[in-house]
Amino acid sequence: MSKKKLPSRTEDFNDWYNTVVIRADLADYGPARGTMIVKPYGWTLWENMQQALDRRFKDTGHVNAGFPMFIPKSFIDREASHVEGFSPELAVVTIGGGKQLEEPLVVRPTSETIIGYAYSKWIKSYRDLPVLINLWNSVVRWELRTKLFLRTLEFWWQEGHTAHATYEQAQEETLQMLEVYIDFARNEAAIPPFFGRKSNSEKFPGADVTYSIEAMMGDKKALQAGTSHNLGQNFAKAFDIQYLDPNNEMQYCWTTSWGLSTRFIGAMIMTHGDDQGLIMPPRLAPHQAVLIPIYKDEDQKATVMDSVASVSAELIEQGIRVKVDDREGFTPGHKFNYWELRGVPVRIEIGPKDVANQSVALARRDVLGREGKSIVPQESVTSAVNDLLIDIQHSLLERATNFRDSNTSEPRDYAHFKEIVADGFAFAWWCGGETCETAIKNETKATSRCIPDSGLEDEDGKCIYCGEMSTDKVYFARSY
Amino acid sequence: MSKKKLPSRTEDFNDWYNTVVIRADLADYGPARGTMIVKPYGWTLWENMQQALDRRFKDTGHVNAGFPMFIPKSFIDREASHVEGFSPELAVVTIGGGKQLEEPLVVRPTSETIIGYAYSKWIKSYRDLPVLINLWNSVVRWELRTKLFLRTLEFWWQEGHTAHATYEQAQEETLQMLEVYIDFARNEAAIPPFFGRKSNSEKFPGADVTYSIEAMMGDKKALQAGTSHNLGQNFAKAFDIQYLDPNNEMQYCWTTSWGLSTRFIGAMIMTHGDDQGLIMPPRLAPHQAVLIPIYKDEDQKATVMDSVASVSAELIEQGIRVKVDDREGFTPGHKFNYWELRGVPVRIEIGPKDVANQSVALARRDVLGREGKSIVPQESVTSAVNDLLIDIQHSLLERATNFRDSNTSEPRDYAHFKEIVADGFAFAWWCGGETCETAIKNETKATSRCIPDSGLEDEDGKCIYCGEMSTDKVYFARSY
Repeated sequence: MSKKKLPSRTEDFNDWYNTVVIRADLADYGPARGTMIVKPYGWTLWENMQQALDRRFKDTGHVNAGFPMFIPKSFIDREASHVEGFSPELAVVTIGGGKQLEEPLVVRPTSETIIGYAYSKWIKSYRDLPVLINLWNSVVRWELRTKLFLRTLEFWWQEGHTAHATYEQAQEETLQMLEVYIDFARNEAAIPPFFGRKSNSEKFPGADVTYSIEAMMGDKKALQAGTSHNLGQNFAKAFDIQYLDPNNEMQYCWTTSWGLSTRFIGAMIMTHGDDQGLIMPPRLAPHQAVLIPIYKDEDQKATVMDSVASVSAELIEQGIRVKVDDREGFTPGHKFNYWELRGVPVRIEIGPKDVANQSVALARRDVLGREGKSIVPQESVTSAVNDLLIDIQHSLLERATNFRDSNTSEPRDYAHFKEIVADGFAFAWWCGGETCETAIKNETKATSRCIPDSGLEDEDGKCIYCGEMSTDKVYFARSY
Repeated sequence: MSKKKLPSRTEDFNDWYNTVVIRADLADYGPARGTMIVKPYGWTLWENMQQALDRRFKDTGHVNAGFPMFIPKSFIDREASHVEGFSPELAVVTIGGGKQLEEPLVVRPTSETIIGYAYSKWIKSYRDLPVLINLWNSVVRWELRTKLFLRTLEFWWQEGHTAHATYEQAQEETLQMLEVYIDFARNEAAIPPFFGRKSNSEKFPGADVTYSIEAMMGDKKALQAGTSHNLGQNFAKAFDIQYLDPNNEMQYCWTTSWGLSTRFIGAMIMTHGDDQGLIMPPRLAPHQAVLIPIYKDEDQKATVMDSVASVSAELIEQGIRVKVDDREGFTPGHKFNYWELRGVPVRIEIGPKDVANQSVALARRDVLGREGKSIVPQESVTSAVNDLLIDIQHSLLERATNFRDSNTSEPRDYAHFKEIVADGFAFAWWCGGETCETAIKNETKATSRCIPDSGLEDEDGKCIYCGEMSTDKVYFARSY
């Protein structure tokens, strides 16, 4: 591990991000340009995210399945917006088993088309509906400028694909899964996203409507962290997904899709991290607590390690994910830095004095220095650590919410708008016209992020760009 | 669902297998030739297998990671046996983002090469060893003749990759993971495999030694169901995986790899199934019990459904995976067949009489008809179902062990050998020569499956083919 200081988060956010991802052992570059290796520490974080999401998917009636990564190229061409959106980004297999293929195969950029193929075979009658399937896999999109977790040639994600008998059911599903993402972001990742409908120009290629969650990063840029699409009957018509209704008439299905990816790991890093490195939200942290023994000689070591063993056994017994750092040849100070960089929420120190006093020292990652330290009796260590984890989870969410809200403003006029989006989010009236949207983007680099369903039906205002009457109020921000 | 009878397992095992996989909703064909869609019922089985294996991997100190699916083609060429073994089976991406690639990318057929690339970067000192990483992913091998689960162009698996300081540690790891597979097969899947070393001609391309577990299918053919490889220093030298030892000298690492795939699902189907369909081993079954309400009118339905609700709540509370089949418009008889085909270990029937008697009827899948049925008081349903699940798990293993042992013989001479391998496994002396091995294969279609470490060092016998003195005793069988 390098002992060099991290770049400053405020001075060079980009450099800070790239450095912390590598040094904290979250990920590394793969040998093929733009690809990513997720290292064990990063992958354990992803596994914890997967479990938290999967539980929510299953609680809402979904089941998982496995679909092939190879899609005949002709499939992509069947839905007009879809082909337009994805064609430039495809990886194409042209050789298999030493021979040129008659029809090239695309490595899935997303699975709507092959899902369409399967659902049209599987769905016959209204009795077969709804179909509620989720896939955990990786997908490939040929990106030219890559950045670990945020934009890589291959990334890991889940993609849900559902089919319904009516528009209303599909819309209900679309909004339900948006809610699942909001709930996951807030209550697991301690990220308070804005959420709402995407503008037409920002929606998924092939969707009628796309909803997204949009998180504010530490540099006040937006990151789209999860999307839920009402696909209408677009894919049902392109792939002939029909069912016989109770009146014996053939009907097209209504379908949805929704996804959240390893990109979300980038969101957590950029929301919670500080100049010392990562800060992991306790509910998803690979290690919730790290236990560091402190001793100067073999005698001290023997008694300290006894305490360490009994404390760690008790914490594990209570379901706390604890790591004991008993490596030889590293000073406690080195270990403190090592685990601070990796963002472990709670550090537990046990030295000879602690053994003598039957106590342990706790240090919280989100409050560095003396203020974040406490001494607790060894007998109550489990409840103390548990309380601390809950408190840190809560504090991270509160801190992120305050940061988000204090950097989001409603502009008085376009000049004010430009000031706001130079360093934050603007919540502004917009006429809905693509001309205004494009002009704003060109002039300020800010894009429309999402349009909350804010109960503003009776209100209206004037478009921040053209001054026309508007019924939509939109979050605008520069984004990743 | 089709109401046609299944093909007979004894009359046409192959037709039976293909039909049951499709009709029981385990899997379907993908649109690209040779690819497979694992449907939710099959995928849930795979998830249960993953959990049972992953727990064992983590208990033995391994962590998971995520590696890219794309490997530069030149990597494959670096290890001589590896390139020879895998080159004919590669899928090659030549176009990305609309442009011809300068260096084509291979879709991983297995990850030893890209792991070699990463480990050579990550491993610096003896302090970094051992590295114990596992990947859950899918791999692609261009197969011309495919069969669902057994041989598909893309399949799902786990691949473990470890690096060690010494040969002894690598060998210990190789054997430990073989033990993990044996334990998983016996105690989770109720499959009693033979196990041992593969012959040179059957080992993994790039390994010094390969160990495998070999299961006997219902048609008495062998299926290789998991492999563990001691890779020696072959990949360490090809990819320059070196470490500084405690004496400050550079040393090459010793590496291993080990894998088990969705092919194992085929092994479970072909070990336990019968003419009515699948029989799922209770520990891995997606649904361990199915609860079927029986009623004739709305009055009966109301009281029956009350009982169903309370019984299912109690079973779920006790951690039993229960499915309530409350579909309207299907007779109980239809539902019985439906779930028998899908191999649910225990069926629970609740009708008006059961409600009146405060009882439920249980039927075990592995013993059809009157003999497998019992009536138990509703108050003890949880313990009764639990006991039944344990008993079924045990019976399946016992049945499979008896079948395996009664179809494995030691041949007197080569004529006898030919008789045995026409319809079973032969356990025979072999001189170790490839000439004999090849001749046996050509003349009988039986291949050497594995060489158990049977404590025969002091014994020897004569090669079943050439009569030369031999120290190895080998399982021979026709195989998948």
